[in-house]
Order: sequence, then C-alpha cells, then structure tokens
Amino acid sequence: MGQRPGDVSAPARLAGPGEGIGADELALAARNHGLPLEALRHDLTPPGLHYVLTHYDIPYVPRAGSWRLSVDGQVRTPLDLSLADLLSFPQVTTRVTVECAGNGRALLTPRPISQPWLVEAVGTAEWTGVPLRLLLAEAGADPAAADVVFTGADHGVERGVEQDYQRALPPAVAAGDDPEVLVATAMNGAPLLPQHGRPLRLIVPGWYGMAHVKWLRSVTVSDVPFKGFQQSVAYRIRRTAGEEGEPVTRIAPRALLVPPGFPDFMSRTRVLRPGPVELFGRAWSGQAAVSRVDVSTDGGGSWEPAVLDPAVAGQRWAWRAWHHTWSATPGEHAVGARASDIDGHVQPVDQRWNRGGFANNAVRFVRVVCVAGAFSP
Amino acid sequence: MGQRPGDVSAPARLAGPGEGIGADELALAARNHGLPLEALRHDLTPPGLHYVLTHYDIPYVPRAGSWRLSVDGQVRTPLDLSLADLLSFPQVTTRVTVECAGNGRALLTPRPISQPWLVEAVGTAEWTGVPLRLLLAEAGADPAAADVVFTGADHGVERGVEQDYQRALPPAVAAGDDPEVLVATAMNGAPLLPQHGRPLRLIVPGWYGMAHVKWLRSVTVSDVPFKGFQQSVAYRIRRTAGEEGEPVTRIAPRALLVPPGFPDFMSRTRVLRPGPVELFGRAWSGQAAVSRVDVSTDGGGSWEPAVLDPAVAGQRWAWRAWHHTWSATPGEHAVGARASDIDGHVQPVDQRWNRGGFANNAVRFVRVVCVAGAFSP
Repeated sequence: MGQRPGDVSAPARLAGPGEGIGADELALAARNHGLPLEALRHDLTPPGLHYVLTHYDIPYVPRAGSWRLSVDGQVRTPLDLSLADLLSFPQVTTRVTVECAGNGRALLTPRPISQPWLVEAVGTAEWTGVPLRLLLAEAGADPAAADVVFTGADHGVERGVEQDYQRALPPAVAAGDDPEVLVATAMNGAPLLPQHGRPLRLIVPGWYGMAHVKWLRSVTVSDVPFKGFQQSVAYRIRRTAGEEGEPVTRIAPRALLVPPGFPDFMSRTRVLRPGPVELFGRAWSGQAAVSRVDVSTDGGGSWEPAVLDPAVAGQRWAWRAWHHTWSATPGEHAVGARASDIDGHVQPVDQRWNRGGFANNAVRFVRVVCVAGAFSP
Repeated sequence: MGQRPGDVSAPARLAGPGEGIGADELALAARNHGLPLEALRHDLTPPGLHYVLTHYDIPYVPRAGSWRLSVDGQVRTPLDLSLADLLSFPQVTTRVTVECAGNGRALLTPRPISQPWLVEAVGTAEWTGVPLRLLLAEAGADPAAADVVFTGADHGVERGVEQDYQRALPPAVAAGDDPEVLVATAMNGAPLLPQHGRPLRLIVPGWYGMAHVKWLRSVTVSDVPFKGFQQSVAYRIRRTAGEEGEPVTRIAPRALLVPPGFPDFMSRTRVLRPGPVELFGRAWSGQAAVSRVDVSTDGGGSWEPAVLDPAVAGQRWAWRAWHHTWSATPGEHAVGARASDIDGHVQPVDQRWNRGGFANNAVRFVRVVCVAGAFSP
C-alpha cells in the first residue's frame, strides 16, 4: 500500500487570475516570517525580527555539545569536528544582510505558488565562525574538485523527492576569502537560535539565503557537479517549466524604507500629517556595492536622490542606511525607494517575472494618506 | 482636502464562499508570526519562535532608560516611574503560556477577515516584573474604581478610529494575587525584545494576548467603565454585527502536538514510516487547570487518553507536556488532540463560530501519510 509522491507533494504551479492566497501558502506564511519593516531602524536585526524560511522542520537540538560536522569526499584527511574543535580554529565576525531568494514572490503576476513573501524576507546580523577555507585547507580538499556540497539536518519531501536539505558552492566561492564563507556558531554574539541553524550554519556573504545551509552536518568535496534538488530543480531562474534555467546566486540590489507615519491595522495604509517627514531606510546588494538610493513619492513618476550614510569599513556585506526629507502634502501618495550599485544594476520599477518567483527586486511602493488635522470618524 | 476614515480603514467583513486569503490578510501574516509547531518541544519558547501579534507598528525604543510609566487617575498619589524605580519593587517570575485571541480564525467558515491565524499563535515564557497590585497599592488606587486602563505606545488607525492601543481590566483582576498581574521588564531572564513590549508590558496569566498590553506607558484607575475601541468594539464574541456581545477574557483549553514524521514543503502533509510513533504535545487552559488530553488518529472517530506530565508547582499558567504512543500503519491518518480542564471544559471538534473569529479552540487534525519503504518518485 505504497503512497505515490503525488499524494503528498502537489506539482509546482502558478496562481490563476485573481486567485487568492491558498491554505498551503498560508500555512507557510504562518510558520516563516519576515522583518516587520519598521524594524529596519535597527542596524542589527533583533532576535525574532530577522526573516526565517525553513523548508522542512526546525531540528530540535537539546545538546549542541554532541553535534558533529564532517568534512569529507575528495580530501586528503577527512575531518569529524565537534563544536569545541571548530572553536579552536581562528574565528571571524562579519556583518551580513541575508535575503530570501523568494522575497517579492507574492507580488508577481502570475504568482508562483510557494512561500508567499511580500518584501520583508531580509535581516542583518553579525555572524561569528570559522572561515570555511581553513577547514578545507585542514582537510586537504582537492583543488580540482567540481563542487563543495553542504548538507543540513532538516529532512522532508519536496515535489515528491525525499531529501535532506543540500546545496553546493563552486570551490572558488567555498574557499574564497572575499567574501569569506563562514561556518558560523554565533549570531550577534550569542549561540545560534534554533530557527537560525543551531548549532551550526553556513554564511555566504552576498548570496541569497538558500546558500546559507542551516543545521550544517557535512561538507563534502565532490569531483562531479552537484545535481541535488535544491540546486538543479529549485532555485533556478526559468521562464518556462522545461528549461534548465540559470542558478540563483547573489542578491540583487534593493532599498526598503521604514513606512512613514502610522498604520491602519488591516490595510497597513500609512497615515501622516502634512509637513516635513524624514524618510529612513536601508539598501543592499550582493552583486556590487550600493552606490545610490533614489526616492519617489509619486509612484515612480519622479525620483530624488536620498542621502546614503557613509560606507563603513568591513561592512561591505551589510545594508547601508539612507534618509531623505519629504514635504508631505494632504492627499494620497505612493512612496518607494530604489537602489543602484557600482556595477550599474538598478532596481526595476516593473517586475522581472520567472516561474519560481526568485530575485524579484522590483520597487515596492507604500500607500500613504496625508491628512490635515484630526483623523476620526 | 480631509480624508474620510473609509479611505484608510475597510469595514469589518467575512470572506465569501471559497474566497482565498487576500492581500490585506497576507500583509498581516507576513509581519506577525506563529510558533512553528515543532517548537512545542521546547518547555520555554526560544526568542523568535514565540507568537507575535502587533496591531500597529513595533515602537522603536533605543534608550529604555528614559522610558516612564505613569500610574494615575483615581489614585491618592500619582506615580511617574522609571525602569530603575520599577526594579526597586519586589520582583516576581512566572511561567505563562500566552495565546492570541484570534488563534484559529482562518480555520473558521465563513472566515472573518483579520490576522489569518491557523493554530500557531501561542508561546510560553518566564516573565519577570513587579506585581501590579503593589503599584496600585503604592499609588493608593480607589478600591471602588470601575476599571483599570492600560495604554501602550503603539499608535494607529483601526476601523476608522485613530488610537493608542488600550485595554482595561476589572480592578479585582488588576489587583489580584491569583493570578498575579505583572508589569514585566524581562522575558526568559533577558530584557524584553522590541516585539514583546520593550521595555515594559503587562502580563495577565490565563488571559488571551490582547490583555497583555505591550510598550506600557500608563496605568489609569478610572471611575467609569472603559469604552475604548479594543474593549467595546474589538475582542467581543458576537454572532451578528449589531449585538453588544461578550468580552473575550480567559484562554479556552487547547492541546497541540508536534507534527509527527517529516513534512512536505508545500502541503505540510506529514510523512512517516510504519511502527510505533511517540506523539508529543502541550496543553493549556486559562479557564481552569488542564485535567486530561485525548488523542485521535482517525479524525475524531475514536479517542485514547494521552499521558500528561505531572503538574509542576507554581506553573499553573504554563502549558503541560503530554505524550502518547501510536502504532502507525500504512495509509492516511488525521491526527489530533483535545484538552479538557477540571471545570469540564472540553475542546470541541466542531467550530464555535463568531464574527470576530475569537477563541476558536476546535481540534485541529494533522494529515499524516504513513509509507512502508522508500519514498521517492
């Protein structure tokens, strides 16, 4: 009485015209969560406000002391490391903005059915850990390997395929020193929280979240290209279902703002009074350093440059703060921001659609109602 | 050029037959978040896994040291307290399970349009603070007052009414010592996180979350009954729109379980292998102590008693662990649990519908597919 995969996993699909969010999408939205945008105020995102996306279950790890990490495959000396072993290597702390590759998905038309992110799937933390290149050197990884494969402890089924969560990086990225990939044991100076990978995760500065494998159990140096589900089926930019597509890698530029004024509970429309309003936000890019942010208060009809805070040495992979003074006048406004980077990437105003709903960094406008005087029925 | 409230706040409404979750509900689901059910494993919910519901914005409080709490109204001596002042009063630590009054809302038919919770809006923490009764005694609160009103710093519009978040408690509850209402400054031994009320919140053991006012700025002893929006419009059990309704107060009994096996990413259907399965969960009630938990693996057709962990002295207001061994056989199962309390309240299998979608503690069944042998395409 075996089950067919189709009994558990629905095929990938796109929402129909006007189709509301379904029960499956809602179940994901209730589990995973974004950064409430007012929390962009914090340089480092406080615990519980950083976005979280878990494919399967968050593993329950009551005794981190018994966790092991193996480094194996095409290596001279396989390693089997405890947390204490990892702490005996040099430790590096890096401030990194991580964004989910699916951020913006629920704003696409048609909407790919998956975790229905609006734009909040982001957060910034200081991650501390061992540079992966030191572990690969210690093990004597084959420099001619094809891929370095990372396996997490989270286990589930996806599109009919039972799997541990696995992703790979090219050896040059895995062993790179700019950015330096970390095997992280701490977030903002504290042990990793369960939902952020307790006790170990990968941090790949500049890359979307799918690369930052949580609950990391093994690092396997492979002499053949990795073809696992999360590499060759998921996380690819495709226009049509059949094509091979391009892999999702580095974070496209994005600017977001703290919604000004105060919200209506249900519509999240913002209300404010006329006069000068200090708009504040953050901007980031994993492709090249952010070079400018522009602000529009008329839905993209016109743009004005915002003031970027100075770049901070050593914080290339973290968001930068920006601000802009706006003179709000009574009426309705659509307020948004767009980031550009030094390589000329600019956030688009219109969507760049793909079937998986990845890397949608189109500008998001916030509806603002400016009211002169008291606001009451 | 004034705005009418209707321009910002939509009227309360119910979803139509088959109507999917809307953009407004999704925006709330992306901000607020539940407890991923596998995190029921933790006696104390780790930071970021405890449910959060914020009506407006999370206030940004970079300097908690300058926060003030006033105790005023019908008092002999008004108080104006700093955090240091509060810490000079006796401190109490209580373990409390808090659940959102709207938990279960999105499972109702028809669905009230608001924050679309499934069943995850719960969490347990140890809260440390000053018993409110000590502050009321210090101020010399009028024992004949009608209500004690609590005002938070979160500000917004709701159904056309601009407001600070405000709730009231009857004086006998506010000044009670069983349970003891706390003005809490710490959660699990650490200062409150921004989303949990930094730097101050009310804790009302046994009551739904709307009573636990966050970002608490004032406690006002009133000689007239409080008629504010969150007391007389929202958080009332009504069958029809026009009626006065009954106030939402204490938490109805509920049991939830860690979903067994492992999930499919999108459907969250659980997969497991045949054989003995240790089901584990938690049960709580704010109405009277939990007395039993029953488990069904056939969608409520039959029930078996679970084993409740012993009650722990001093933990009356926290959830209790339970477990039950189930022999899973190949096929599909609907697994759920129901709690009963010593006053005879039992979780219903069918919904008890109301317009606001409050206190829906109907049993939630988890779909489980038991597969003999390998699971792959």
